[in-house]
Order: sequence, then C-alpha cells, then structure tokens
Amino acid sequence: MGCVQSFREICDRQKNTNVRLSLPAVCFVWQTAMIILFGVFIRYNEESDTHWVEHRKANNISSDIENDFYFRYPSFQDVHVMIFVGFGFLMTFLKRYSFGAVGFNFLIAAFGLQWALLMQGWFHSLDYTDGKIKIGVENLINADFCVAGCLIAYGAVLGKVSPVQLMVMTLFGVTLFAVEEYIILNLIHARDAGGSMVIHTFGGYYGLSISWMLYRPNLDQSSRLQGSCYHSDVFAMIGTLFLWMFWPSFNSAITDHGDGQHRAAINTYLALASTVLTTVAISSLFQNQTFQIKDLGVDGVHIQNSTLAGGVAVGTAAEFMLMPYGSLIVGFCCGIISTLGYIYLTPFMEKHLKIQDTCGIHNLHAMPGVIGGIVGAITAAAATESVYGREGLVNTFDFEGAFKDMVPTRQGGHQAAGLCVAICFGIGGGILVGCILRLPIWGDAADDNCFDDESYWELPEDEESVPPILQYNNHMRNKDV
Amino acid sequence: MGCVQSFREICDRQKNTNVRLSLPAVCFVWQTAMIILFGVFIRYNEESDTHWVEHRKANNISSDIENDFYFRYPSFQDVHVMIFVGFGFLMTFLKRYSFGAVGFNFLIAAFGLQWALLMQGWFHSLDYTDGKIKIGVENLINADFCVAGCLIAYGAVLGKVSPVQLMVMTLFGVTLFAVEEYIILNLIHARDAGGSMVIHTFGGYYGLSISWMLYRPNLDQSSRLQGSCYHSDVFAMIGTLFLWMFWPSFNSAITDHGDGQHRAAINTYLALASTVLTTVAISSLFQNQTFQIKDLGVDGVHIQNSTLAGGVAVGTAAEFMLMPYGSLIVGFCCGIISTLGYIYLTPFMEKHLKIQDTCGIHNLHAMPGVIGGIVGAITAAAATESVYGREGLVNTFDFEGAFKDMVPTRQGGHQAAGLCVAICFGIGGGILVGCILRLPIWGDAADDNCFDDESYWELPEDEESVPPILQYNNHMRNKDV
Amino acid sequence: MGCVQSFREICDRQKNTNVRLSLPAVCFVWQTAMIILFGVFIRYNEESDTHWVEHRKANNISSDIENDFYFRYPSFQDVHVMIFVGFGFLMTFLKRYSFGAVGFNFLIAAFGLQWALLMQGWFHSLDYTDGKIKIGVENLINADFCVAGCLIAYGAVLGKVSPVQLMVMTLFGVTLFAVEEYIILNLIHARDAGGSMVIHTFGGYYGLSISWMLYRPNLDQSSRLQGSCYHSDVFAMIGTLFLWMFWPSFNSAITDHGDGQHRAAINTYLALASTVLTTVAISSLFQNQTFQIKDLGVDGVHIQNSTLAGGVAVGTAAEFMLMPYGSLIVGFCCGIISTLGYIYLTPFMEKHLKIQDTCGIHNLHAMPGVIGGIVGAITAAAATESVYGREGLVNTFDFEGAFKDMVPTRQGGHQAAGLCVAICFGIGGGILVGCILRLPIWGDAADDNCFDDESYWELPEDEESVPPILQYNNHMRNKDV
Repeated sequence: MGCVQSFREICDRQKNTNVRLSLPAVCFVWQTAMIILFGVFIRYNEESDTHWVEHRKANNISSDIENDFYFRYPSFQDVHVMIFVGFGFLMTFLKRYSFGAVGFNFLIAAFGLQWALLMQGWFHSLDYTDGKIKIGVENLINADFCVAGCLIAYGAVLGKVSPVQLMVMTLFGVTLFAVEEYIILNLIHARDAGGSMVIHTFGGYYGLSISWMLYRPNLDQSSRLQGSCYHSDVFAMIGTLFLWMFWPSFNSAITDHGDGQHRAAINTYLALASTVLTTVAISSLFQNQTFQIKDLGVDGVHIQNSTLAGGVAVGTAAEFMLMPYGSLIVGFCCGIISTLGYIYLTPFMEKHLKIQDTCGIHNLHAMPGVIGGIVGAITAAAATESVYGREGLVNTFDFEGAFKDMVPTRQGGHQAAGLCVAICFGIGGGILVGCILRLPIWGDAADDNCFDDESYWELPEDEESVPPILQYNNHMRNKDV
Repeated sequence: MGCVQSFREICDRQKNTNVRLSLPAVCFVWQTAMIILFGVFIRYNEESDTHWVEHRKANNISSDIENDFYFRYPSFQDVHVMIFVGFGFLMTFLKRYSFGAVGFNFLIAAFGLQWALLMQGWFHSLDYTDGKIKIGVENLINADFCVAGCLIAYGAVLGKVSPVQLMVMTLFGVTLFAVEEYIILNLIHARDAGGSMVIHTFGGYYGLSISWMLYRPNLDQSSRLQGSCYHSDVFAMIGTLFLWMFWPSFNSAITDHGDGQHRAAINTYLALASTVLTTVAISSLFQNQTFQIKDLGVDGVHIQNSTLAGGVAVGTAAEFMLMPYGSLIVGFCCGIISTLGYIYLTPFMEKHLKIQDTCGIHNLHAMPGVIGGIVGAITAAAATESVYGREGLVNTFDFEGAFKDMVPTRQGGHQAAGLCVAICFGIGGGILVGCILRLPIWGDAADDNCFDDESYWELPEDEESVPPILQYNNHMRNKDV
Repeated sequence: MGCVQSFREICDRQKNTNVRLSLPAVCFVWQTAMIILFGVFIRYNEESDTHWVEHRKANNISSDIENDFYFRYPSFQDVHVMIFVGFGFLMTFLKRYSFGAVGFNFLIAAFGLQWALLMQGWFHSLDYTDGKIKIGVENLINADFCVAGCLIAYGAVLGKVSPVQLMVMTLFGVTLFAVEEYIILNLIHARDAGGSMVIHTFGGYYGLSISWMLYRPNLDQSSRLQGSCYHSDVFAMIGTLFLWMFWPSFNSAITDHGDGQHRAAINTYLALASTVLTTVAISSLFQNQTFQIKDLGVDGVHIQNSTLAGGVAVGTAAEFMLMPYGSLIVGFCCGIISTLGYIYLTPFMEKHLKIQDTCGIHNLHAMPGVIGGIVGAITAAAATESVYGREGLVNTFDFEGAFKDMVPTRQGGHQAAGLCVAICFGIGGGILVGCILRLPIWGDAADDNCFDDESYWELPEDEESVPPILQYNNHMRNKDV
C-alpha cells in the first residue's frame, strides 16, 4: 500500500504541469534554428522579388495582375482564418479550456508554418541552381495546409497534453507530412487539391494513434470539465462557421488558375450545404431532444462538427468534374456518416479501442478524409475526354512530363495508392510520436486535471469563484430542507 | 371552464415542440429532391468547366485572371460571411436563444442556397441549347442574396417558430424571391445591385406579414427570455460588425466589372460610416441612459442594428453616380429614421398592428429598403450624359437590347415600379405563407416557451442551473429581512 | 474640510458622465459638416467613375481587371476587419467594458474615416485642375490606416474617457496624422508601407501623451473593474487573431502592385509567426504560472498583445528586400521586447511616469513602431543594386521625379528623419490635445467609475445582478463561520 502511495506521489510530482523552463527553452532554441535555416535556405521567388519587373518583361507578361499573388492571396487569407480562428475556436467548446484551445492552437500553428516552409520547400521549391528554396504566396498556403494536419491531430488530444508535447507533436507531424505529401503528389502522382488524403486522412490517423498511445484509463476523473457551457458552445460556433464558410477557399487555394479554382470552390460550396441538412436530420432523429449540444464524447456536437464533413470529403475531387449533383451526394453521405460516428463510433472507440478522441476528429477528418480519397479515385478513374475535353483532361490531371502517357483509369489507381500511403503515415507516425510523448518529461497534466486551463494559464478569478459558492448554497439548502 | 381547459391541453400537446421526426423527414426528402433536380438541371458554366482553356483561346481572352472568378470571389466570400456569421450572430442577442439564432440560420441558409440556385437558374441562367442551368461564382453570390431575403424574414419571427416552419418559410421565400426578382430585374428592367428592393424590401415585408399572421397575444408570458445578457450582446456585436464591414462587398458583388464594383464599394462604405454617427446621436438623445442595449422590442438595440441601415438604403443606387456626399446623406437620414423606428414604431406595431417583430427588421430592412428603392429611382431619373458619359450611361443602366431606347427619366419610373412589386410580393407572399404556417402541425413552441433554446436543443447544464439557485437565495434573503 | 468637500461635490457633479446632449450635438454637427465638405470637395477618381471605360480605352488598358479595385480590394476588406473587429475586440478584455471597447471604437472609426478622406485627400489626392479630391479604393485604405492611429491612442485611455472626448481626440488625431504623414512621405520622402512610423509610432505616443495629461491618481478606486473575466478574455482573443491573421494585408495593402504587395505579405507573415514563439517563451519564463492572462497593468496580457508586435515592427521594411530570415529576426526581437515591456515597463510607467496605459500600447505599438522605423532605415541604407536590380531599386524606393538622384544610404537617413517627425508629432500633439481634454466639460467618468459600461450604456440586468447576491452570500457565510 505504502509503495503504491509513494509511486503515485512520484507520478504526481511528474505530473506537475510545470513547463516554465522547458517551454521557453523549446521556443527559443527552435525559433533560433528557424532563423538560421531560413538564412541559409529561404529566399523570395521570382514573383515576390524586386526582379519581378524584369522577369515580367522578359516573359511577356502584360500586367502585374498576373502575379500569382492576385490569383491566390484572397484564398490564402481565408485559409489563414480557418487555421487560426476556425480550428482555434472550434475547440473552445470545453467549458474551461478555451485558452488552451485558442492559445496552443496559435502557438503550434505559428511554429509549424515556419518548419513547413522549410520541409515542403526542400521537397517542392528547391532551386537547384543555387540550392535555395524560393517562396511565394503558394508556399504560404501550403505551409498553412501542412499545419492544418497537425491541428487536426491536436483535436484528438485536446486538454490532455502539455504545450511542450504539442510542439514535439508538431515538429514530427510537419516532417512526416512533408515526406508523405512528396510521395503522394510527386512520386505516386496523385492529385489532392483540398487534401482529403494528404491533410485530413493523415492528420486524423496521426492524432488518433497518438491519443491511443497516450490512453488515460482514469480520464473520467476530470469529467466535470469535459462538458461545455452555453457561451463556450457559442464560441465554438464561431470556429465552425469560419471553417464552413471558407472551406471553398481551402479546397480551391492551390488548384489550377482559372476553371480549376472556380470549379473547386463551387463543388465545395455545394457539398457543405448538403452536409448541413443531413447532419441536422440524423442529429434530430437519434437524440432524446431534437439537437444535442451536450455530453462530449458520448453524443458529440454534431452541428459544430459534422456539418464540416462534406468539405473534407470533397477535397480531392473538388477540382475534377465531380458535377454539382456529385458534390451534393458526397455531402449528403458524409453528413450521415459523420453524425452517426459521433453517436456510435466515438463512444465505442473510447470504450473498446482505448482511443480517447476529445473533438471527435475520427468523424470529422479521418473518415471523411478516407471517403474523400475514394471519391477522388473513382472520379479520376471515370474521367473521359468527352467530359473534360482533350486539353482539359491534361490540365486537370497534369498528364505532363513523366506522366504524359497516363490515362484516367490508371490515375484512379494512383489516387487509391495515395490514400493508402496517407493512412500508413498517419498510423505509423502517430505510434512513433506517441512513444516519444509517453516519456514522463513533458509536463502533461494528471488525469484529474485535464481539460483545465488552470494547469497552464493564470486565470481571472471572477467566474471561477462562482461554482464553490453556489455549491455551498446548494449544500446549505439541502441541509435546511 | 373544463372545455377551455381541455382545449388548452390539446393545444399544449400540439405545442410540444417535438420535431424529432418531421425535421429529419423534411431535411432528407428535400435534400434528396435537390440532388435529383441538380442532376437533371445543373452544370458548370464555361468559366468553371474544364473547357475554359478552349473557350479562353477561342475568345481571345489573354489570361486566366479574366475568369469571372477573380472579379467576384473575394466579394463572394465576404457575402458568405455576412449570411452565416453576420445574420447568425446578429440574432444571438437573446439571452437563451443563441443556438436557435446561429443554428437555424445555418440550417435554412444551407437549404435555401441550393433551392435558390435552381429557382434563379431557371429564370436567369438557363442555357436553352441543352436545357441546363450553367452556374459560376455569380450564381453562388445570387443564391446567397436570395437566402438573405429569407434570413431577414427569420429576424421577425425569431424565437417563435420551429425549425420545420423555418424550412417551409424558406422554401416559399426563395420561390417568391426568384419570381419577384425576375419581374423586377428582367421584365421591368429595374437595376438593383445591392438589393434594396429585391432583397430587403421583399424580405422585410415577407417576414412582417408572416409575423402578423402568427400573432401571439400572450407572448409576454416568455418576457423573462426576451431580454439580452451582457455576453449575448457582445456576441451580437460580432454579427453587427461583420455585416457592417462587408456590406461594401454585398452591394458591389454583382455590379459591373471595373468602375461599377469600385463605385458601389465606395458609396456603401460612406453611407455606412454616416449612419453610425446619426444612430449614436438619436440613441443617445432619446434614452434615459446614453445608450440603450436593453429591453428588446421596446427600445431596441440601436447600435447593433440601425448602424446597418445605411448599407440597405444605398443598395440600389450604389452602382449609380450617387456621389460621395449623396451616400453620406442617405446614411445620415437612415440612421435617424431607423433608430426612431426602434424607439417609436416597433412598440406601436406590436401594440396596435399586432406585428411582433423580434429583431426589428422593419427598422433595419423594410423601411431602409423602401428608402433605397426611392433613392435609386431618383438617382436614375436624374442621370445625365454629362455626368455619366455616353458609354457610361449605357453600361450603368444597361440600356441595351430591348431597352436600348430607354432614357434615364423613364428608368426612374421603372425603378419605382420595381419597388412596388417588391412590396406587393413581400406582403402578399407573407400572408399566404403565414396561413400555411398557422396550421397546428409544425411543432412551434407555446407562448410561455418562446425564445428558449431548451425547446429544440439539449443544452449544457452549468449556467442554466445558476438562476434557480439565485432566485432561491433572493427569496430566502427577502424572507429573512 | 467643508471646502474640499464642496469642491469634490462640484467635481462629482461635473463627472456625471452625462453626454446625453453633447454627444448628439457633436455627432450631428460634425456629420453635417462632413456632408457639406464632401459635397464641395470629394468626387470619384477615374477608376471608380463611369468614365472608366473611356479612360481604359484611351490608355490602352486591356481589361477591367487592371482597375486598381482588383489589386487592392481584398486587402482593403482585411484592413477594414482589423479596424473594426480587430481593434474593437482586442479591447474587450475588461470584464465590464466590452461595449465601450467595441462600441466607441465603432463610433470614432466611422467618424475618423470620413475626416481622414478629406484631410488626406487635400494633401495627397487633390486634382488641381478642378480643385476636387478624387477618391478610389486606395483612399479608403489610407483612411482606415489614419483611423488606426487614433484607435491605437484609444487603447491608452480605454475606460477613462467619455465618447465626446474620444471624438475630439479623433478629430485632432486625424488632422495631426495627415500633416505628419505628408511631411514624412512627401517632403522627407521616407517610405512607410505598413506605417510603423506614420501609424504606430505616432498613434502610440499620441495616446501615451494624452494619457499622461489625463493622469488619474486615484484610479485604483475602480480596480475592481480593471481585471478581465474568462469570457471577456476569449472575446479579446477574437480581436488578437483577426489582427494577427490580416496583418500581412495591412502591410501590403498600399505597396506597389506585383512584387511589392507579394513581398510585404510574406515578410509580415513570417515576422508574426516568429513573434508568437518568443512571446510565449518570455511570458512563460517570467510568470508564476506558465501564462498570465490576469492582472491588467501589472503583468499584462502577453498572448493577446505581444504576439502582434512583429507585425508592427516589420511595417516599414516589409516592402524592402528584408529577406525571410530578416523578418524572423525582427519578429524574434519584438516578441521579447514587447513582453518584457508588459512585465516591467508598464508598471514602471504607471508608478513613476504617471502614464496609465490601459491596453499597454507602449509595448504593442510605440516601441515596436520605433523599432520598425529603425529597421526600415537600416534596410533602406543597406540596399544595393545587386540585390534589388536597377529597376527594382528605383521602383521600391520610388527614386523618381525630384528624388531621382537619391541613393540608398541617403534614403536611410531620410527614413530616420521620418521616425523623428512621427515621435515629435505624437508627443507634441498628444500634450496639446491632452490639455483640451482636461477641460471639465466632456462628461468623463469619476475615478471610481472608470472601466464601467454602466456609465454610458444601459445594460441588461442578469449578470449584473449576480455579484451583489454572491457578495451577500459570501458575507453571510463569513458571518456564520
């Protein structure tokens, strides 16, 4: 008995959530490393360099407006809002973890995007003439995309890890992402405009695997904090809506100029609209009350999350000729599957698979991502010259260079292969990183102290002081009666 | 007596707000219908189709940047934010109806935009060669506009209707909108860039008529929930500001490329700025305290609403040569009229006309919409070739095709005719739809249960539990003393 | 004694915060003046006028897309969001001053932008052929920029001044801004794309000087309201994030078409990312807890504010060839300096310099602004033709017209001179305006009544009623025990 006691004390001492030195150390060292690596490797590309004027004249580009900046900057800003406000506020639903949600999201995204510029740059934007990575607005978008994968993973472990663990998770996540992306897009030559496979499937399984490795059997000790409160749910709706509204920009941000961006935006817009209706339908059908806003991890928060599944699932195929009704069908199915996932799968996974998925990313990202990969493979395989036109087919699927003999059916196979790679990287990478994160050196909270901003933030006192008093009164009342 | 009692019981049973089966049924059936209709009718237009490359070359378009996507997508995204965050959060001011405001707004907008793409498509974008509707980014904007009309109407009945009623209201609203819009824009050839007439006047009177048909004499039974609370009012300010900031995009989203969009944005920006000052002035002058944030339906919430009236009123004339000072004058007047409307007209309408207007849409949309129609008619009638230039006049008023002999003075008359059509459709359509919504089958809440999210949402418990305890304490204290 | 008493009573009567007549009077008169001045002076420029078609043809502009509207409108909307939501919500952190923060921000910005269009127009956009100011989208952006300077100043006096004082402060602030801007940009020929000097340095010192003039020795009497509460801090994060995300648009909004805008956005994006990490590091290192969200004016609110310092400091140099690593270094340093400023400098300034800086604008705007000016001067002085290219150098620094013989080293000197002008105008102007604002006619709140929305807004009752009851209960409990 005494032995267990003392062991527990050691554990509790390890679980003191003190990151007062480790967090600054990580931030300073890594940021310094970024500066050095940027100094060695990163330069402006020809469209953001002062030599643009000469480049423009030399290439007979008639106007400044043809700078890629004007094709992509509005979409970039929308994506940027999704990353910081969308993901950040979507996770504020927990009643006492709003700062952890928004603040740590902010921290890891700000670090991740720098590391992503380097990692993705080495694979995609390296100028072999001088060994420099040349960046422009498209790189910024891709960095935000890469960060999105890590933020998805954060959703699975929300409230259960320390900021230092999150930094480690992001460092490895971005690295794995860049490799996986290179394999899928360049080696396998799969297309993935909105990142159903590359971002959502990978990010989803990466987070779930880490959560599985960090399984906390006594997490119910902090169940008092696992719910939402009225206003925290309204804050979460801000996140939901900004993700929902700007998803067409997400899926069209890096597609081909012209019809590519145009079509991707339309398809995403339609898929998302359709998802809302089936989400509401299933949510209403399977609850005691009409809608369920309560009880995280049991019934989930359908309106806040499942309404977004259509945007995930249409990611790969958004730039293809999916057709407007095709987008609606994808959204229709995803709303149903995602909501049922929150109702049945999340509790099942927690109970039987030991996967505690705080935000239900399996239902919002992993499953819809896989569906998106499959839809993409089918749509690609079914492409015909009569629908796409000769030039359209080549442009859309990029049948050029080494892949100029590619045909749609084979492209479908490559898409499927890409999906498998994303799943493997997600699960494998997650288990690996999960092992590292299990080390008892990261300052994560004890089981009875999860989902609590108090662990890492000094909080204002006012509202915190309400519950005890009310409890006291309650207590008094019960005594009196 | 017993008879009345039993009748009441029946009514109460009818008023059980159970939409657990009807809502899913409506969502599933209508979404399925959308898929079928989209399959039959809707295709990409030439700018979002993979044949764009060929089209571009055939038409000597020098660059992808001339795809309509790049002219309109940034404005589209702003409009999208207005529809979902702007309208949604503007209505969160009620202390316990934030989910109803944001959530149902989300649901009906997602359905409405699909139906709008079809209805507007049949009237405006039907390709007679193959019987298909060809959609691009402009159609998405117009669908959002169409939905805006229905969301305005939602403002009048906020908290008093069930989600099924809202779906019905949206179905008919979109249908009426498309017909009305076709008559005003195509048959009458009125111009209405920002939709003062087509969107705001129609939507306003549509909602007010429905509210009149659904008059609840005992609504004061839920007066405890009709007020706002501190944080719900801050949430509402999010809605206000996003509407206010993006209104220039709203009014310029579908105007002519080039100077048309440019001028519409400037005019709206100025009108809105001017409105803020007069709203504050009147609000301060007529209240006990400086500003009034409280007492919904009595004094209204001026800063949250009246500050937007200038954007509504400048909608029609925004693309004309209204001149910067003209915009300021319109905004000046609307701030005054709208705020006075909240102070005097809304209580008067509730008391004597049996129109319960939860959000005061009469002051924010209906009246400023009518003013906008009149301003548009006057500005059009006063147009001269010396101000507009020969080409400018033809471009701005679209004096082409069947209307190539049109002159400004006559155009002014057509504008006025358009305004009348909008009012008639609003009132007529509202009464019709109101009749349908009075049927006791829709699951709307009883009079003492309005404005309460509990009716349709399962809510987190925490804050809900505060009031009873405090009431108890209050009670105890009063007893003691 | 009785004398002091009666003097106090007079003061208290003067401090009755009654602006019921003065505020409407100011709003009406000034708005009317705006209408008259706009009528006399302001017209559309050639790109927003209906003569654009003719202008386009005459100048061989091939497409409507080359209208400046399409180069700048997306950035304009982002800046607009920063002004109204960004600045507004950043200041909502006080537990009972959210309406004052958002509402007065709204009011003074709406007035300020009109006055700025005139003031800046006279200096920069006056068409000497007809004596009119010709406005387009760039003028709207500049007006928003000008307003930003005044909103920064508002941050220093937040909660301590009346809306009438704010209007006066804005009137003079915009005037001073326009003169200072003309001297710095046109006479001295300094470059300042993101306004490190013109906006942030000026605005910061302007606000600090006013706060110094309005020093309140007994401000601790309202210390109960000087803190934040949990949800008010989450609201403030909305402001933080929208400022952070859209800062690349702020710094690139009025830079040169093409590479200028492109590069400015990249540099700002990187500087901001870097700032987040060092802010977190310093905040964590110097606090008892990991992060500090509490205790306004003592430890400050680092995450909410210091994370933005990088955007300020990179403002001037954003359009230069600062290089990606250069941006990271600027951000790195500013995160450290700004956070340390909140920890040490703000309390020091309050205690020893009698400067009460509610939002800590010295750390967020004034200091980083000065750093930005210095960075700009160094970067300009270090510019070489080998890095910029012949044409690039001329374009970037605008070595044309009267300044065509300028060289980079001398440009560096001019930049430094510009910085000095900004500081002088800020301090001098602030002292002057502070004198005016000390007159006892403006209806500002008494020392024990600051930071309280009750002074100017009629508030909903619910939450307000909680504290007294709880206090009562607390009191009872203490008695019992």
